[in-house]
Amino acid sequence: MGDLHRGRQSFVFDRHPAILATSAIGGKKEQEGPLTAYFDYTDLDTKFKQKTWEKAESTMQALALESAKKKLRLKDDDIDLLLAGDLLNQCISSSYSVRDTGVPFLGLYGACSTMAEGLCLAGMSVNGGYVRTAGVISSSHFASAERQYRFPLGYGGQRTPTAQWTVTGAACALLGHREKGPFLNAATIGAVMDYGIKDANNMGAAMAPAAYHTLRAHFDDLGLTPSDYDLIVTGDLGMVGKEILLDLFRKDGISIGGVYDDCGTMIFDLQKQDVHAGGSGCGCGSVVLCGYLLSLMKKGKYKNILFCGTGALHSPTSLQQSESIPGVCHAVSIGMERR
Amino acid sequence: MGDLHRGRQSFVFDRHPAILATSAIGGKKEQEGPLTAYFDYTDLDTKFKQKTWEKAESTMQALALESAKKKLRLKDDDIDLLLAGDLLNQCISSSYSVRDTGVPFLGLYGACSTMAEGLCLAGMSVNGGYVRTAGVISSSHFASAERQYRFPLGYGGQRTPTAQWTVTGAACALLGHREKGPFLNAATIGAVMDYGIKDANNMGAAMAPAAYHTLRAHFDDLGLTPSDYDLIVTGDLGMVGKEILLDLFRKDGISIGGVYDDCGTMIFDLQKQDVHAGGSGCGCGSVVLCGYLLSLMKKGKYKNILFCGTGALHSPTSLQQSESIPGVCHAVSIGMERR
Repeated sequence: MGDLHRGRQSFVFDRHPAILATSAIGGKKEQEGPLTAYFDYTDLDTKFKQKTWEKAESTMQALALESAKKKLRLKDDDIDLLLAGDLLNQCISSSYSVRDTGVPFLGLYGACSTMAEGLCLAGMSVNGGYVRTAGVISSSHFASAERQYRFPLGYGGQRTPTAQWTVTGAACALLGHREKGPFLNAATIGAVMDYGIKDANNMGAAMAPAAYHTLRAHFDDLGLTPSDYDLIVTGDLGMVGKEILLDLFRKDGISIGGVYDDCGTMIFDLQKQDVHAGGSGCGCGSVVLCGYLLSLMKKGKYKNILFCGTGALHSPTSLQQSESIPGVCHAVSIGMERR
Repeated sequence: MGDLHRGRQSFVFDRHPAILATSAIGGKKEQEGPLTAYFDYTDLDTKFKQKTWEKAESTMQALALESAKKKLRLKDDDIDLLLAGDLLNQCISSSYSVRDTGVPFLGLYGACSTMAEGLCLAGMSVNGGYVRTAGVISSSHFASAERQYRFPLGYGGQRTPTAQWTVTGAACALLGHREKGPFLNAATIGAVMDYGIKDANNMGAAMAPAAYHTLRAHFDDLGLTPSDYDLIVTGDLGMVGKEILLDLFRKDGISIGGVYDDCGTMIFDLQKQDVHAGGSGCGCGSVVLCGYLLSLMKKGKYKNILFCGTGALHSPTSLQQSESIPGVCHAVSIGMERR
């Protein structure tokens, strides 16, 4: 067993866990967006036939797990470990979605970085031989998030230009060993970065520095450059955070513009869908990765992508107590070939 | 690299990560309790000189990390990964406590099972060679938990006999490779179990079935019996949950009474400290393990203990929406020798 640790923050997956199957579930606005064809299921009923938005979000997670399992004809018993997280207080979408599965479960809180965090940990667990098949699930729901973080929707509050629209979506990725890619090749775990942003309607600015530091660490630790990837994609920086990240790299004299994009600017039509700075939430990066991007990888459009989950680690309480908003970002290197 | 997976839910740590150092921080009531000598630091000021209880809880986590580092003369730069979690909405105690460290960070949500969950994952990361030194931190605070889960303290609400007292405490464990124990030898990840309990003042009953299932899986998966341990200890079932767990095993004809105890019944003097059914919270199991139990292990009292973190995965919102309370339990086998 070798030393897989690289540099300060990174490690390699020497046995290259494969992404066996993924799924993406979305709501009405996601169905109306440009990536509609890449969802396994979307529902025009934002409550997914449940009584509350919280139960709807849990239902989306369960649907995501079902869809992914179906593609591999797996039963719950075939999955050794599930890691899941969401934005709701005490991560109830996740705990309630898995309670009838009987699958060993570890809950995560990485805010919108949850899918990347889960891939790092599930990747470790499969790569190391602790489990054979591991799954990651994450979700967010516009209505449950607005009620919890900002205002109940009934108030009809105004949104600022830097505000992002929480994606109603859930995604699942199942990992295991297989000869065919996509494979997890390496990962970089981010530290919490706090640049003093206090505006809960400008998450992009709060998270961009974390994305910058994680990307720099990834390249430094593993001796890579942006051109080693066909696509470097952040989870949900939106228009504002995306520009800040490009600026931060420009100051270093490094151009990532040619291969860089952000899931928050891809999932909605920013001109027509009135989402201001773009999409956000645990569901944003995860459905774009698990629905759209991995589909394009399998079709040959991308050989290597670096998926960078970005999260803002505040709460309404921390903001009321005058705290700033810390960000975090974890990066997972996914390739159609082992490298 | 071998297959470390055992049975349905368990795995072994073939390289036996060592617990290099631990620390335990407590509040006033913990200082007045029977384990007072085993804390690294306790404060009579329940706000730990901060303006709010939430900031106090974050301060406790930072103190726990500092204390553990000090014992090894480590700096933040010497730690490759921190995993942390707590009970507060969006786990702010954890995110804010680590934001100035620069250490790669992964947030967990396992409710009161967080220390066990963290030991499983940090153990994987060290055992697998992904990182060299990993830390786990978890915390709870009586006042921040009461305000969030039940009533603000100022209301002076009555507590029921089955209610438990959330421990004001934080603990940290640092893992790495070393010739000397205690070592992590194996772990069992629990599935979410929901037996329909809806009483938020009876967490023990909600969590006991999860503890039962995880313990049964641990013994079955690894071919062990209760007598393979000097001590089997659950995190915070309290008096009520402890009796239920003993009952469940009695029905199977298995006696665990001789080696079984619960941290929630150890941390306070249940006769004198008016805590009703005992202690609870992320801080309960974690300070008893990291302060008291590991100290006794090093003194030779115990050779092998099975630490079973127990968590209730509900939220105030899920209860308001008439949901029952799911429980989870993860078990970590800790030995003074590798086995």
